[in-house]
Amino acid sequence: MANAIRALAMDAVQQANSGHPGLPMGAADIATVLFTQFLKFDPAAPKWPDRDRFVLSAGHGSMLMYALLYLTGYSSVTIDEIKRFRQLGSKTPGHPENFITEGVETTTGPLGQGIATAVGMAMAEKIMAANYGDTIVDHKTYVLASDGDLMEGISHEAIALAGHLKLNKLIVLFDDNGISIDGPLTLADSVDQVKRFEACGWNAWRIDGHDHKAIAEALTKAQSSDKPVMIACRTTIGFGSPSKAGKSSSHGSPLGADDIKGTREALKWTSPPFEIPADILKDWRKAGERSKAAHADWDKRFAALEAGQRSEFTRRMNGELPKAALDAAVKAVKESLQASPKEIATRTACEFALETLIPAVPDMIGGSADLTGSNNTRTKSMKAISAADFSGRFIHYGIREHGMAAAMNGMTLHGGVIPYSGTFLVFSDYARPAMRLAALMGTRAIHIMTHDSIGLGEDGPTHQPVEHLAALRAIPNMLVFRPCDAVETVECWQLALENATGPSVLALTRQNLPQLSKDFVTTNRCAAGAYEIHAADGQAQVSIFATGSEVSIAVDGAKLLAEKGIAARVVSVPSFELFAAQPEAKRRAIIGDAPVKIGVEAAVRQGWDAIIGNDGAFVGMSGFGSSAPYKELYKKFGITAEAVAAAAMQKLGK
Amino acid sequence: MANAIRALAMDAVQQANSGHPGLPMGAADIATVLFTQFLKFDPAAPKWPDRDRFVLSAGHGSMLMYALLYLTGYSSVTIDEIKRFRQLGSKTPGHPENFITEGVETTTGPLGQGIATAVGMAMAEKIMAANYGDTIVDHKTYVLASDGDLMEGISHEAIALAGHLKLNKLIVLFDDNGISIDGPLTLADSVDQVKRFEACGWNAWRIDGHDHKAIAEALTKAQSSDKPVMIACRTTIGFGSPSKAGKSSSHGSPLGADDIKGTREALKWTSPPFEIPADILKDWRKAGERSKAAHADWDKRFAALEAGQRSEFTRRMNGELPKAALDAAVKAVKESLQASPKEIATRTACEFALETLIPAVPDMIGGSADLTGSNNTRTKSMKAISAADFSGRFIHYGIREHGMAAAMNGMTLHGGVIPYSGTFLVFSDYARPAMRLAALMGTRAIHIMTHDSIGLGEDGPTHQPVEHLAALRAIPNMLVFRPCDAVETVECWQLALENATGPSVLALTRQNLPQLSKDFVTTNRCAAGAYEIHAADGQAQVSIFATGSEVSIAVDGAKLLAEKGIAARVVSVPSFELFAAQPEAKRRAIIGDAPVKIGVEAAVRQGWDAIIGNDGAFVGMSGFGSSAPYKELYKKFGITAEAVAAAAMQKLGK
Repeated sequence: MANAIRALAMDAVQQANSGHPGLPMGAADIATVLFTQFLKFDPAAPKWPDRDRFVLSAGHGSMLMYALLYLTGYSSVTIDEIKRFRQLGSKTPGHPENFITEGVETTTGPLGQGIATAVGMAMAEKIMAANYGDTIVDHKTYVLASDGDLMEGISHEAIALAGHLKLNKLIVLFDDNGISIDGPLTLADSVDQVKRFEACGWNAWRIDGHDHKAIAEALTKAQSSDKPVMIACRTTIGFGSPSKAGKSSSHGSPLGADDIKGTREALKWTSPPFEIPADILKDWRKAGERSKAAHADWDKRFAALEAGQRSEFTRRMNGELPKAALDAAVKAVKESLQASPKEIATRTACEFALETLIPAVPDMIGGSADLTGSNNTRTKSMKAISAADFSGRFIHYGIREHGMAAAMNGMTLHGGVIPYSGTFLVFSDYARPAMRLAALMGTRAIHIMTHDSIGLGEDGPTHQPVEHLAALRAIPNMLVFRPCDAVETVECWQLALENATGPSVLALTRQNLPQLSKDFVTTNRCAAGAYEIHAADGQAQVSIFATGSEVSIAVDGAKLLAEKGIAARVVSVPSFELFAAQPEAKRRAIIGDAPVKIGVEAAVRQGWDAIIGNDGAFVGMSGFGSSAPYKELYKKFGITAEAVAAAAMQKLGK
Repeated sequence: MANAIRALAMDAVQQANSGHPGLPMGAADIATVLFTQFLKFDPAAPKWPDRDRFVLSAGHGSMLMYALLYLTGYSSVTIDEIKRFRQLGSKTPGHPENFITEGVETTTGPLGQGIATAVGMAMAEKIMAANYGDTIVDHKTYVLASDGDLMEGISHEAIALAGHLKLNKLIVLFDDNGISIDGPLTLADSVDQVKRFEACGWNAWRIDGHDHKAIAEALTKAQSSDKPVMIACRTTIGFGSPSKAGKSSSHGSPLGADDIKGTREALKWTSPPFEIPADILKDWRKAGERSKAAHADWDKRFAALEAGQRSEFTRRMNGELPKAALDAAVKAVKESLQASPKEIATRTACEFALETLIPAVPDMIGGSADLTGSNNTRTKSMKAISAADFSGRFIHYGIREHGMAAAMNGMTLHGGVIPYSGTFLVFSDYARPAMRLAALMGTRAIHIMTHDSIGLGEDGPTHQPVEHLAALRAIPNMLVFRPCDAVETVECWQLALENATGPSVLALTRQNLPQLSKDFVTTNRCAAGAYEIHAADGQAQVSIFATGSEVSIAVDGAKLLAEKGIAARVVSVPSFELFAAQPEAKRRAIIGDAPVKIGVEAAVRQGWDAIIGNDGAFVGMSGFGSSAPYKELYKKFGITAEAVAAAAMQKLGK
């Protein structure tokens, strides 16, 4: 049965003339034992909530995944799709993509992401089990990881977090083949991985990854572990290939016709390409039916659940919001802000909104990368999650921005949880590869990123984002919000929660801001991405566009201009992406036809020309920040009402 | 003497009303023993090449650094500067900045960067020692690291690389205080750091970090280690504070007047703020003189060196290029390309250029994060560096993009080495925090990033950068090059090498490109960032701007337009940054006055409006890529000569 995987992998890579045969051939035995004896899954119901999750962290070995999906009977991967490996529009792209191929739990390929995402899946399992009991939620998360996964830094954050939380249903099978693209692993690595995982609170040991009995024994032992488990499976990359087994030449290129012929002989595999002998296919399909009874039993247990719990569980697993409760919560926050306006930092406004949102949306699980008090992401009532108790709503992620973002992806992919994070905006750089994957996969991970400009003051340029708004806005399918006051903050929170098909970032200030929106409106004014927040007195000669903390500066600038008899309006732009998505006529109407356009943002100009044109004036940053109290920095870098007015006067030739 | 550090730290933070007193107070004993008994340094000659390097990885404890610089007698940090801690224009910013304060070896603050940068310093030490002998180059690299440093993923990449290369002159003092910002470390971490470092090939053990004798013994033992050393020093954060010692409340906020009073009593420190008793200051200044004899001895040994070696060593340590050799090499490559034009990928052109550049510039040390054969960063003659032999010119960094970028920063900061890397452009996300630091510090790290668009084909969207050019261009003080052919590739290499005050990125293709520049010119046409590469036949109606692999598509588009009688010119834009830096008149001349402007780049539009205006047409990507052979992808996403011509026709209303 393992040879069926090997044959499909080598033939598909050969046909595509592109791909990685080495891993599927080396790890075929591990995967065979896992899928035929241990994994709880139902190819007829790929979304069954209580299935075990399998993550191929070494995503370049995608043919292993596709072979398994085909052999076990998923309808998503037919033999024709395997023949179209890596071709345009196929279900079998170069790396596994969860949004293309049913049965693929997460997109992998960028190394380390799979294992770190799996940690989030295992966390979500514990959280949902704490809420709905282990008769409804009780499944494992299996990972097949490569040397590369374990060399990437994110793996450290992931395994340390998993060890700390004692995620004992997480089982990592390490394809310990001693080979990377450049050659033998000894060229670049000497880590004792078993000892390393033990140091991080895992149970870990070594086995022969081609010995089915040893694999089965190890997986049996892993079922009852009190800690996460790492099984280092010594394998031969490209197993079966007469000239390339055990060599990096089998890693990332087709074996070639001669070698494939030799492999067929060595493996005694006589079938032609893409043909699986009927008896072997039958055995594989039988393996795919293994969990039918378990699934039926689960259905019964689920049906026995109290109706309210059942619908709540289904709602959460489907990623639907409790809309009425959310809308009421947002309305309550806005009414409260109307009744008593607040001059607070938007990070504080975030906490103020969360106090009402958290009880209304039980799916929300907050956290911070060791900046809880600074990010204001924990409300007073939130209990922290710990290894002993997953019923809380707040996660101390530790100083692990990247691991946090990947775990959040895993939680959303698992379902039932809407995770939000906390860190400083500048550290989005650390989390970026996982945030990009969130955008690609379309997962609802919400990142609260505070201290969003030079406005953080004394910590200086290492901590002051200047390019991060632009860099995040550049990522497709990600919403970047920068609210200007407490009202916009809760409105942006609502939009982020409603953005079910991609990640969102809320960039929030450390420093206090006046509440500009004082009149209560039921509509979400941020929904169009931009709106006029300060009208001109008469026909506008100047339109000033600003975000976040610079909106009040822009309004003050408009007032200075008004004193000089120049009519200026201010448009708040809390989200470039939502604004860009408006119909052209609406966009033009919001931009207006004032002859002078000015952008104001304490960040680099890149991206602003789309709004103000390349002849517009920009008041912002052109380099890195500096260490000083923030009011001095705004003066030093010329981001003031006076500078806005002066830029307008210059453009008007006055 | 340690209490002098504590007093300065708590008083400076109090005066600034901002900062982190906990670490300097906790680690004062470690630092005192290191600086008074072990560190080889000369405050009067902060740039002495053979000094030991000291890196405060936990940069938030910057007052420790400033206290040490003041106490040991560096002229950069006076007591007045300490009084101006975290104030505008002071030499004592919130985090240590090597470009502001002499004696600070590297900017730290973003956690994990310091230790990873130090690995690069220790590598450069070995490399330079292999070249000039250990009578000239023989020094240690010391790091003071915090829990946060060791939680960040980059620390894994750094310590695994250091362990593999047996960097036995690297000594990490871990300030093991068990406290992070959120509270006790047990909230978020359970890693056995000693075991973890051992697993990564280090010698590691625990000591009491307040016991001067134990610290001295450990440092003595570390001097003769055969592996890198990690000493876990158990300390009490905020040592001396009656109410905050051992608590996270001492981590990131001033202690407050009452607690400072109590601390003074507990430490029996009677001097007023910013006054160090004369005898203690004298002892510290004496410690600052400790290495005078060693420095004088080194001067003698250096003077005895053969003159050519001496001037070469000085040139390298000063970061000066061997200009004549470099210019000759570039000329030779260009002449060769003129003689026999090449239709090759720019990654291949890079290797072709390196074959000539590597012998000409001995400072260059190449590498790759396990993609050597794909990045084409290793020439035939280059020997790999290993633990046993640092005389090579190529580094197998392993699958550690972030650790690679940080190590490169460390190498440039150490001096003597111009490091260049290799990875895929999409993985710039993994390396980004270290690349940003390179830009902030102004270090000459050169990143070769291949597979720079959907042109990589089958690997699909996880591997296809679409937003990365924009995201990198957003970083201040970084040059992003995207050459369109073999000639531009060597020209961009020259510009990157000449860019001594910041990092550069060369974005290179996987796919073959025609050589557009066939006429030999001695000048570097890429130096202005943009130039007309294809002239219009007559008065241009259309200007097409393109980079890299899309320049030839733009030229073909212009030819299609010419067939329709429409005069179109093409401008190659290998570097947005260099183009933006041109005088306004020159920029306008290059942009030209054709009524229609079109941008062509297989990436997102962000940033392009600065050149083509927001009314310009853009032929590029608006979302993520896909998995298929690359020619099919260019068709699918509409990045073709036909699409360029059609966009022009539409804008012309034809």
